[in-house]
Amino acid sequence: MSAWHPTRYREAIRGEEWTSPTVGLAPGYVQANLVVLPKESAYNFLLFCVRNPKPCPLLYVTEVGQRVPASHVALDSNLATDLPKYQVYVEGELVDEPTDASRYWRDDMVAFLLGCSLTFEHALQRAGVPLRHLEADKVVYPPGYVTNQPCEPAGEFAGPLVVGMRPIPHELISKTVEVTSKYQLGHGSPMCIGSPESLGIEDLDRPDFGDSPIMRPGDVPVFWGCGATPLFTAAAARPKLMITHLPEHMYITDMTADTTVSPNGGSFS
Amino acid sequence: MSAWHPTRYREAIRGEEWTSPTVGLAPGYVQANLVVLPKESAYNFLLFCVRNPKPCPLLYVTEVGQRVPASHVALDSNLATDLPKYQVYVEGELVDEPTDASRYWRDDMVAFLLGCSLTFEHALQRAGVPLRHLEADKVVYPPGYVTNQPCEPAGEFAGPLVVGMRPIPHELISKTVEVTSKYQLGHGSPMCIGSPESLGIEDLDRPDFGDSPIMRPGDVPVFWGCGATPLFTAAAARPKLMITHLPEHMYITDMTADTTVSPNGGSFS
Repeated sequence: MSAWHPTRYREAIRGEEWTSPTVGLAPGYVQANLVVLPKESAYNFLLFCVRNPKPCPLLYVTEVGQRVPASHVALDSNLATDLPKYQVYVEGELVDEPTDASRYWRDDMVAFLLGCSLTFEHALQRAGVPLRHLEADKVVYPPGYVTNQPCEPAGEFAGPLVVGMRPIPHELISKTVEVTSKYQLGHGSPMCIGSPESLGIEDLDRPDFGDSPIMRPGDVPVFWGCGATPLFTAAAARPKLMITHLPEHMYITDMTADTTVSPNGGSFS
Repeated sequence: MSAWHPTRYREAIRGEEWTSPTVGLAPGYVQANLVVLPKESAYNFLLFCVRNPKPCPLLYVTEVGQRVPASHVALDSNLATDLPKYQVYVEGELVDEPTDASRYWRDDMVAFLLGCSLTFEHALQRAGVPLRHLEADKVVYPPGYVTNQPCEPAGEFAGPLVVGMRPIPHELISKTVEVTSKYQLGHGSPMCIGSPESLGIEDLDRPDFGDSPIMRPGDVPVFWGCGATPLFTAAAARPKLMITHLPEHMYITDMTADTTVSPNGGSFS
């Protein structure tokens, strides 16, 4: 696909012309993770996100039953149809991976859009910080690790912090922190730099998901909060019903990364 | 009072040795606004704060019924006794201003601690930015204005943005933005610079509360989100019961301003 406006990508996805990962689509636009829960679970999940802002950056929360996000998030969009693939969990068990979640989306559901790391990866590239997993000839995902650090729990939502790792040249780590700290709605600055053992990671070459890291001489492992954290935690809480995006199959918004910097909130931009 | 540790101030407040405003006490430590609501109102109020982060910066949310905050917020403390004065509202009507809120604090209440502007005022002073209301010989409060800009509503919580204004020398405004943007849990960077008319403010000399501003040649009016926003909005929602701090009579935490910068969340600091 060429660089269309997000509206065109969402149309293609809604029409099931595109059912594959969204990484690389609509460069410059914010992509979001999706978690949809019944209202009865929404307070504790919202509190969990507030208490763990780095792994769970809240981009947007819908009204109960609402499938259409605000126009500043995406114009003419429907969250139940505009992601390439969904996962549907009943009491924590995966029951379906549909391309359209409409038939599962009850009127008591609340949708949470969570920021993702593509936002800061693009910013780091613009700043001249190399990202090793993008230097390979094939698609390589950054390694993810389930750590030994607990998130701050909220009610039934409790679980370990999950991190994503990117090797960064040692002399570019300050720049990396300064650039990524601007994008708090895309996981923000790193949570751990250079100390995998503090997270209980014994072997960097054996991640829990993603690909093994490509480390070059002088690289230091840098760890960010990962969007798998709320997904794992939410599934473990065994809510009656949960709809999420299939990993890598995210929601393409109309927001650009820099519109998420220092949000005022409300209509007052 | 001299510069005791916050624990000593809270003891004096709990014992009703101190029942006056807290401004100036425990310099360097974060003071917080308090809003306590029944669980039935907590989801929408939490969502209101998430949607309006600059006027409503969330420092901490308790478990339902809990009066003791986490140890990193304050050691050996009780939110129902450790503020100098409270306001108690029943269905939006002020019914009491006790020095101890224990007898009103039901087991279904959730307490929200919200950051306040003292945090960034101290940081601006350290950075050499003059604050005009602190240059007077007597206690002067920054002017506050109810604007014509609506907050992003959440359920029954809806109302105008309220801002506080500080005149800043024009050549120090970039520094002011850069310094205050670090303290997002103390209202963060300004929401409006130099354009009171955009907020519907016709006469800066007639604020809705606080004192008239002291403007010097070259000063530009700079507006921050104000902690009165959630208080006004919460009272207008007429919850069955609400406990807040009496204005200027805040909660003194053990947190220093810089510990609130870039929080990881959870036990992982």
